[in-house]
Amino acid sequence: MLLHEDRLFPSEPGTRKIARALYEQVRSLPLVSPHGHTQAAWYAKNEPFPDPAKLFVQPDHYIYRMLYSQGVSLEDLEIGQAELKNPHQVWRIFASHYYLFRGTPTRMWLDFAFQELFGLEERLSEQNADHYFDVISEQLEKPEFLPRSLYERFRLEVLATTDSPLDSLADHAAIRESGWNARILPTFRPDSVVDPEFAGFAENIAKLGEQNREDTSTWAGYLNALRKTRDRFRKAGCTATDHGHPTAQTANLATTEAGELFSRVLAGSADAAKQELFRAQMLTEMARMSLEDGLVMQIHPGSVRNHNRKIFERFGREAGSD
Amino acid sequence: MLLHEDRLFPSEPGTRKIARALYEQVRSLPLVSPHGHTQAAWYAKNEPFPDPAKLFVQPDHYIYRMLYSQGVSLEDLEIGQAELKNPHQVWRIFASHYYLFRGTPTRMWLDFAFQELFGLEERLSEQNADHYFDVISEQLEKPEFLPRSLYERFRLEVLATTDSPLDSLADHAAIRESGWNARILPTFRPDSVVDPEFAGFAENIAKLGEQNREDTSTWAGYLNALRKTRDRFRKAGCTATDHGHPTAQTANLATTEAGELFSRVLAGSADAAKQELFRAQMLTEMARMSLEDGLVMQIHPGSVRNHNRKIFERFGREAGSD
Amino acid sequence: MLLHEDRLFPSEPGTRKIARALYEQVRSLPLVSPHGHTQAAWYAKNEPFPDPAKLFVQPDHYIYRMLYSQGVSLEDLEIGQAELKNPHQVWRIFASHYYLFRGTPTRMWLDFAFQELFGLEERLSEQNADHYFDVISEQLEKPEFLPRSLYERFRLEVLATTDSPLDSLADHAAIRESGWNARILPTFRPDSVVDPEFAGFAENIAKLGEQNREDTSTWAGYLNALRKTRDRFRKAGCTATDHGHPTAQTANLATTEAGELFSRVLAGSADAAKQELFRAQMLTEMARMSLEDGLVMQIHPGSVRNHNRKIFERFGREAGSD
Repeated sequence: MLLHEDRLFPSEPGTRKIARALYEQVRSLPLVSPHGHTQAAWYAKNEPFPDPAKLFVQPDHYIYRMLYSQGVSLEDLEIGQAELKNPHQVWRIFASHYYLFRGTPTRMWLDFAFQELFGLEERLSEQNADHYFDVISEQLEKPEFLPRSLYERFRLEVLATTDSPLDSLADHAAIRESGWNARILPTFRPDSVVDPEFAGFAENIAKLGEQNREDTSTWAGYLNALRKTRDRFRKAGCTATDHGHPTAQTANLATTEAGELFSRVLAGSADAAKQELFRAQMLTEMARMSLEDGLVMQIHPGSVRNHNRKIFERFGREAGSD
Repeated sequence: MLLHEDRLFPSEPGTRKIARALYEQVRSLPLVSPHGHTQAAWYAKNEPFPDPAKLFVQPDHYIYRMLYSQGVSLEDLEIGQAELKNPHQVWRIFASHYYLFRGTPTRMWLDFAFQELFGLEERLSEQNADHYFDVISEQLEKPEFLPRSLYERFRLEVLATTDSPLDSLADHAAIRESGWNARILPTFRPDSVVDPEFAGFAENIAKLGEQNREDTSTWAGYLNALRKTRDRFRKAGCTATDHGHPTAQTANLATTEAGELFSRVLAGSADAAKQELFRAQMLTEMARMSLEDGLVMQIHPGSVRNHNRKIFERFGREAGSD
Repeated sequence: MLLHEDRLFPSEPGTRKIARALYEQVRSLPLVSPHGHTQAAWYAKNEPFPDPAKLFVQPDHYIYRMLYSQGVSLEDLEIGQAELKNPHQVWRIFASHYYLFRGTPTRMWLDFAFQELFGLEERLSEQNADHYFDVISEQLEKPEFLPRSLYERFRLEVLATTDSPLDSLADHAAIRESGWNARILPTFRPDSVVDPEFAGFAENIAKLGEQNREDTSTWAGYLNALRKTRDRFRKAGCTATDHGHPTAQTANLATTEAGELFSRVLAGSADAAKQELFRAQMLTEMARMSLEDGLVMQIHPGSVRNHNRKIFERFGREAGSD
């Protein structure tokens, strides 16, 4: 068995007994997942998930960051490639380093998936890597492993995705129009249009303007475009926003001052302090809009991202190390 | 019963046994309370405590801060009013939200008071709110619930209050002169005359000058007035000072520089950094005076106070959220 | 007995059992000590250790810092004296304050030495101070307490000392040439020549130049001298460097800029910020050299040293309080 029945519970018998009793009361309840790390396209298309390497290894920076720290090259893991040339080989590299994840949350949830979903009971290693690959691949082809089947099997009551303001939300529309009885909601995550350090910041803001027929080269037009986008999200079922800021700093500048700061960041002439001030101001603007439209704010502050310049330049924002 | 015999002890049987043994050794010892959060006037006048709402809810910002966070208005709780118009109603609001305090220190000590002092054994709730009110009110009228009786019942050996340098300490004098055999000492808490952000800072310093016949518009006169006040406190039994600073920053400026800084903060023309520098300098001055007069320094650094501007402006310094 | 068999293990029986099992597996393994706080001269000369006061009290700032905090004068402890005038008296002062170390790591390891090496089983105190002194002194004279005997008795597999770049490493050479079968390696600790606040910084750098026949008044010559010294250390068996920096700050200046900064710190005209910048730059330079020569970097950042100016001025860098 990969999982201990009392994993994550206290070792002391008295408190463990209480933990077990509490868990019994909630373990069968439906899941409400406000930050689900899944994509609407999965449920819109409802196609089989890809092979194990592409499914588990390629998109998970917790996994390849660990392997990288032990000298495995991201090139060998084919990180950032649209199609894997050698998924078996990527999987074998991962399997032969699986012991590294001892004691990590990553192994807790991977072992759970391996045992509870795929019926595997021996720890993943170099020896059983191919067996794992075959068992998982075979099952992923079955109808009960399609995204919508899993949504139902996991007893999800509501699942929120995380979406850019530039996203058309077409996948969310497709889900609704398909008549499938599930509650999958977008979440408004404006990092790409409020963080001057985001790749393509100025282009993103121009695109935001086009989409909303607003002149986003002005402070007022920019705020209007954000307001309209939030409204569009809300109409698609969105109940919350999500903000990934380096700090939880807020600012409350006068309109003129805020407008000048906006012009400067848009022109790319703001220094690091001004960029941070702009993010701080935007946290306040987002709070203000939340008071108007009722969207709940979620803030993920304090992650220093992309500190590995080489990796960032080669593999981009999601892989550049947190 | 509201209290578990082993509350706050470890759950593991081995260490719990040690905790019980240690507690047995100290539970009957007299109390020495160096920071008692009580007022000398209570013991000077020895009048019955007021009704439960005025006694427990109105002065306790831990309580109303929690209720406020859940949408209860401070107006409904009559916070800041000299007399409560509807104490029963305030108490009912508190009682119907008492479940919110589960797991908080506030409930630990309230339940202790309810059970051990007033003999109540059912958890406070909307249902028994009036019963609680009546039981507590009735007992507060009895002689054994007068402040001096409680002081003796609690086996206090010494109790220190916290007092402004502008306080005449008349209540402390009245206690001493009454012949009552108790040790209630003032503590010198100079926040109102060393923190430029304190409401009425300049007026306080002028008053400090009058009281001590010193020209507190000068740095030397100001320090002299503080020295004299400390001496006055010491003669009234004071053994310690207490300092509520936003940070533990200290500075040690030359006399001329310190004098110029003092003039600036007194004139209200010091910016935030200069105000902090002044507090830092005053921490050093207070340490210097402690070396002279032997008063023990207590420092409460790091509380960010009054961050809720609306509440601060309406309900003042003690209610503005920490 | 001074030691509990299960000291430092969990009190909860289930986890304690696991701790005991794990410890059984490792307790007899040889020791690898990468930061041994010992001196090569001990093993080169292999002379008996001095009396207990000089051995345990005088060089251990954890001990005398505690005594100092309780009012014991460092003069009475003869800290900083080459020879102790009254070792019995120093030991008695220490013994009579030994209760202060309850619950500290210092007592954990001292009690271990007292019981396991010297067979003492009663807690050190004022009463048995002389007995302790005599028992320890007597045994330190025996051959089995000579440095090399202890090295073997402790089953050391490898032991690293910490050495200044200005050290000739003659003691390490003497150990190797003596034919004794032990692995005692130097570690390159360049604080004295990379930290502008180190006493004698400019003189140290001049000496570094002489030793390596480089002009260390230039940035290039200085780096060359460091490179040569690292090479000399490596040839003496060194496998690692060790860096005691106030912060873990790094910088990566252009060569010209770094050179100018170096000239300024060497001339003594750099302010605190520039001194910190220089240390930050040197951390990067040391990392760069590690990439070349393969020495492992160890960083001890974040200790604020020498904050007690009086003690620092009288007793020097090692005693000035951390």
